Parts: sequence; structure tokens; C-alpha cells
Amino acid sequence: MPKKTKKNNPRYVVGIDLGGTKILAAVVDDKGQVLGRSKRKTRGKTDNATDPETVTDRVVTCVQDAVAAAGLKLGDIAAVGASAPGPVNVETGFVARMANLPGWEEGFAFGPELSKRLKLPVWVDNDVNLGTLGEVVYGAGRGMKDVIGIFVGTGIGGGIVLGGKLRRGVRWAAGEIGHMFVDISAVQRGGPVCGCGEPGHVEAIASRGAISRRLAAAIAAGEPTLLATEVKDESDLTSGAIRRAWEAGDELTRRVIAETQEVMGLLIASVVNLLDPEGIILGGGLVESLGDAYVEPVRRHAYAHFFLPDRAGEVKIMRAALGDDATILGAAVLARSGL
Amino acid sequence: MPKKTKKNNPRYVVGIDLGGTKILAAVVDDKGQVLGRSKRKTRGKTDNATDPETVTDRVVTCVQDAVAAAGLKLGDIAAVGASAPGPVNVETGFVARMANLPGWEEGFAFGPELSKRLKLPVWVDNDVNLGTLGEVVYGAGRGMKDVIGIFVGTGIGGGIVLGGKLRRGVRWAAGEIGHMFVDISAVQRGGPVCGCGEPGHVEAIASRGAISRRLAAAIAAGEPTLLATEVKDESDLTSGAIRRAWEAGDELTRRVIAETQEVMGLLIASVVNLLDPEGIILGGGLVESLGDAYVEPVRRHAYAHFFLPDRAGEVKIMRAALGDDATILGAAVLARSGL
Repeated sequence: MPKKTKKNNPRYVVGIDLGGTKILAAVVDDKGQVLGRSKRKTRGKTDNATDPETVTDRVVTCVQDAVAAAGLKLGDIAAVGASAPGPVNVETGFVARMANLPGWEEGFAFGPELSKRLKLPVWVDNDVNLGTLGEVVYGAGRGMKDVIGIFVGTGIGGGIVLGGKLRRGVRWAAGEIGHMFVDISAVQRGGPVCGCGEPGHVEAIASRGAISRRLAAAIAAGEPTLLATEVKDESDLTSGAIRRAWEAGDELTRRVIAETQEVMGLLIASVVNLLDPEGIILGGGLVESLGDAYVEPVRRHAYAHFFLPDRAGEVKIMRAALGDDATILGAAVLARSGL
Repeated sequence: MPKKTKKNNPRYVVGIDLGGTKILAAVVDDKGQVLGRSKRKTRGKTDNATDPETVTDRVVTCVQDAVAAAGLKLGDIAAVGASAPGPVNVETGFVARMANLPGWEEGFAFGPELSKRLKLPVWVDNDVNLGTLGEVVYGAGRGMKDVIGIFVGTGIGGGIVLGGKLRRGVRWAAGEIGHMFVDISAVQRGGPVCGCGEPGHVEAIASRGAISRRLAAAIAAGEPTLLATEVKDESDLTSGAIRRAWEAGDELTRRVIAETQEVMGLLIASVVNLLDPEGIILGGGLVESLGDAYVEPVRRHAYAHFFLPDRAGEVKIMRAALGDDATILGAAVLARSGL
């Protein structure tokens, strides 16, 4: 954990969102306003390299560009917060192996390396944690202290804010909502598997990836669907393709989405029955793509299964408000507050 | 929430465990030692009454007996902590409707009424919360700050201690682990129901009550089992009867218990994947009855399904150590510390 420095202007921090595809960086002031931003591909044009040294250099360039875009110099920045797409030891800034960044081995000193290059204090945390923190401080969860973020995309990620603080866990592994079991029969008798290889997890059933696999199998089996003309293989079944089919009233797509909305409602009910938070924030690619048409049925299913049903409405179920900015703003909050 | 008083001896507090069957009270010193205790039936011998006024009077008598057994007077007691078998507003001491105490309507002022009669400050919380707190402070979880207690009896209850504090929730309803969904197929196609009436909850599948119902159905269906001779109806299928059949190697009993142990392992994996705590404590009637023969397979199943499996062992899965004393000791901790 870096030490706080007072010599730089505490009004400005940099938030970084490092993903497997792109790097986002932004200069953020103490009101959460973005003063300058920059975007860059994670992989090189020619070499496709994702080794940690090369990617860290690209992050540095992205930060320099964002600072320049804000009309500032690195010396004006007080601290840097960065997300990484996997488990992070927030105390040391060391990351675990990152599934979407081949070559990042367990124990790469991402925070310290970035700090050395930028000559600034750097805090690092998991991307979904920081996305949730961003939504709680500046987005859908503003004013709340106990919020669970659930992000539905290729997988299903989660972040937990309790008492205004991120819950990290004893192994820095808290918030793995996608890896909660909702279907023991799939464990016992087999079923579609999760990104982690296990059946029965909610990610194996209700993520955008799981939906795409189900749709692809249905298309292959010759089920009638508008998607058949649009789709060559599973990789074409993006959130956008799913939205277009959904909007066109495609029966297969509507049925599969409706089933996963019930599953997400039950997942939320489980998490609420365990933690009884003030709010649940739903975000991620699929939620952004389908919007309230996704959130409303999930909310209805969830409320139907809460413990203390008469008081279900006291737990708000909200749609994420910040899109791609959630993680960089959460990273800025981390930079400002430290752990 | 009562105000702290300094006039009484802070060395002595009283912890109360109010259940649907019995009331336990104990005088506890600042080391967690029980100096005197008392036990009393919740229901009257003749009238079976459980109206809140009558039960509160019985609690008062039980406290007076425990204080006398410790060689003390009520004036020597600094504060009282009490458990109730359902959701409690810990700030006000008001309880919600209690399934096991007929006549206790939503909003009975249990804490204030007890305080008025005893002329002492009284804090009240849910029994499973206080059982978990007792185990964390004086039992299996000593030295830990982040622990989830799971109690398997007629139902399945849970308590959550994070950062050394009980997690109560925005509706005072946190910790309802028994009402987490582990079997969506039961929701969609029907299945055994929970104490709350819903299918798919872990309590509907793996509680002692659920095990008894499955065994009773198997006996009724003529499946061979040693239990057939011992059991007249489902109410005879207590934890003790289950233990005797298990110890005698009864195949049906062993198979049913083994299946529920896998389910409990998956439940624990879900909770750990969400919260990544230091420890899980397993307690309750069934766990006490079967002992490590219950805990060991549950632990094995759980560890096989943790996220970050290489580091699974950093999350300890322990058997509760305090038995019936967990809740009165947790109540004593509450009395001593307030909220």
C-alpha cells in the first residue's frame, strides 16, 4: 500500500480501468468530474502482446494522454487508482493470474510497477469492485452505504460495499457472485459449465455468455429464430445481436432471456436474504443493452422471493447509471481514499 | 436502544436465550465465565400460553433465578442481553412476529418491557445472530473477525460477523441463510418446501426438518431402514433418532445425510465465493448430534467448490464449540457492548 503524499494537488486524481481489450484512464476532480480522458487498446496492433511489462507501459501512456487532455501535468496528480480484471491484493498492489491477460502470472507487482513509472502513489483493486464503488459514490447507489453490484456480461461479476467500504475478503476474493450455486441438480447430473469450469453456478446459466451458448445450440438444432440469418457462430451472439432479436420480438430470444431473468431474480433474493442490503445495482453489457426491459422482470422475480416480503421494497433494485465510467470513477475514489 | 448506566457493576451482565420451548439465562462475567444459570419452560404447564406478557414474566423469573444462583442481586447486574427467535430491531428492542411464539405480534416491545420489569438496560437481538457472536467471541471462532455461522436444526439459520460486528441488515433481516436458493429446478417444477413455504431454499432440502420429512416419506414408501421399527411418525425423527440410525450404519439414513452434506458444502462454497470470510462455523442440533461425522464431509464438499481452490484452506470450516451456551454468551457480549 503506497503512502499518501501531500505534495501534489489533492483535487486531481487519475482513475484507470484496465481490461483485456481496452485501457481507459481519466483525470477526476474531487466532485467526480472527469477533466480529461484517454482510451487505448490493451493489445499491440502487430504483436498482440499482453505481457505485464508491455501492458503496464501502455497504461502509463494512456495516463499521460489523459493528463494532457485535462491540460495538466503528472506533477499535478495526487494519486492514481487502477482496476485489474481479476483478484488483487489491495494492500500490496500485486495481482493474481488474470484470465483475460495472458502472460500475467500470479504475483505481478502491477501497483508498484505503475507507481515506479508514474512516480505517483498507486492503488489497485479488482475491476468489478471499483465499478460497484463508482456506482455507489457517484451513480445509481448515491447516498447508500450497503450495496451489492451485479454485472452481467460474458460472465457475472459482483462487488460488495458494506458500511460504505468495499468488502475484499480474507483472500481478496469476495464478490464472486457468478460462482454462487443456484442449481444443485446441474452439479449432480451435469449441466452447462461456468467460465471457471463448474456447472450449477449462476454464471453458467444466466450470463450473456450462457445465453449466447443456449441460443447457438438452439440455432444449431434448427429452432426457428430471427437470429438464424444474422448469426454465423456463437461469437456473433453479442449483447447487441441479442437486443436486436429481443426488440424484434424473436420468441426464442425472449424465452431464453425470460428464463435467465427469473434465475437472476432468485440470485438477488438469495443475496438479499443473506445480507439484507439497502440496494442492488444491476449493470454490465447485457443490462446496458436491454435496459429496463431487463431490469424490471428481474426486480419483480426478486421481490417475489425476499424474506420479509411485506418489506421487500425497502431494498432497492437499480440499474447501473455510469456505464463504462463506473470503474474509472471507482478507481478515482480508491485513489482519493486509499484502502 | 437503552442508555448505558455506570451505577451497576460492569463485571456482571445477564445473557438470555429465549426459544419456543425453553428460556435460558446466565450471569456472565467479563471473561465470559458463567457464574450462575437458570432454565425454564417457555410455555406454562397447564395453559401452554405464549402470549408476550406471560412469557416476558417467565423470562424475568428465569433472570432472577440465575442471578440468585450466582449469589448476586439484580442491583449487581450492569446490563442484560436477550435473544428472540426471529427478526429483532436491535435499536428499539421491538421484535417481529415469532413463528415459534404464537401470540407475539409484529412490534411487541420485548426489550423495553423486559427493561421496565428488571429495571436494567436490555438489548435484544436474533438468537442465531447471538449464537454466532458467542461462538466468535468465546467459541470456535475466537480471534477471528469475519465469520459466518450456519446452524442446522429444524430449519437452517445463519449469523454474519464482519469486522468483528454482527451484520444486521437494513430490515434487521440479514443472515437468513436457510432461505438462499440452491435448487432453481425446485422453484420451476415444484419440490419440498421450506419453513417459509418456498421450494428451492437450502432449508427445504438440507435442514434436519427436511431430512426427517424425506426419511418419513421413505419409511411410508416401505424402503428398508432400521428407522422403521423406531419411528411411529415424523416427529419421532429427531436428531437423536437420526444419529442412532446413522451410527448403526442404516443405509437410507446414511444416503440421505450424505446428499444433504453435499448440498451444505455447495451452500458454504456459495457464501464463501460471495464473502470470502476467515471462517465458517457449523452448529445446531443436527451438527451437535452427528459431530465431526457431519462436519468432515461438508468441509470436503465445500473446499472442492471454492473460488481460488488453491487457497481454499485459508477459509476455516469449524464445528461450533459452545452448544447451548453460544446464544447466552453472545447475549452477554451484546449486553456488554451494546449495538
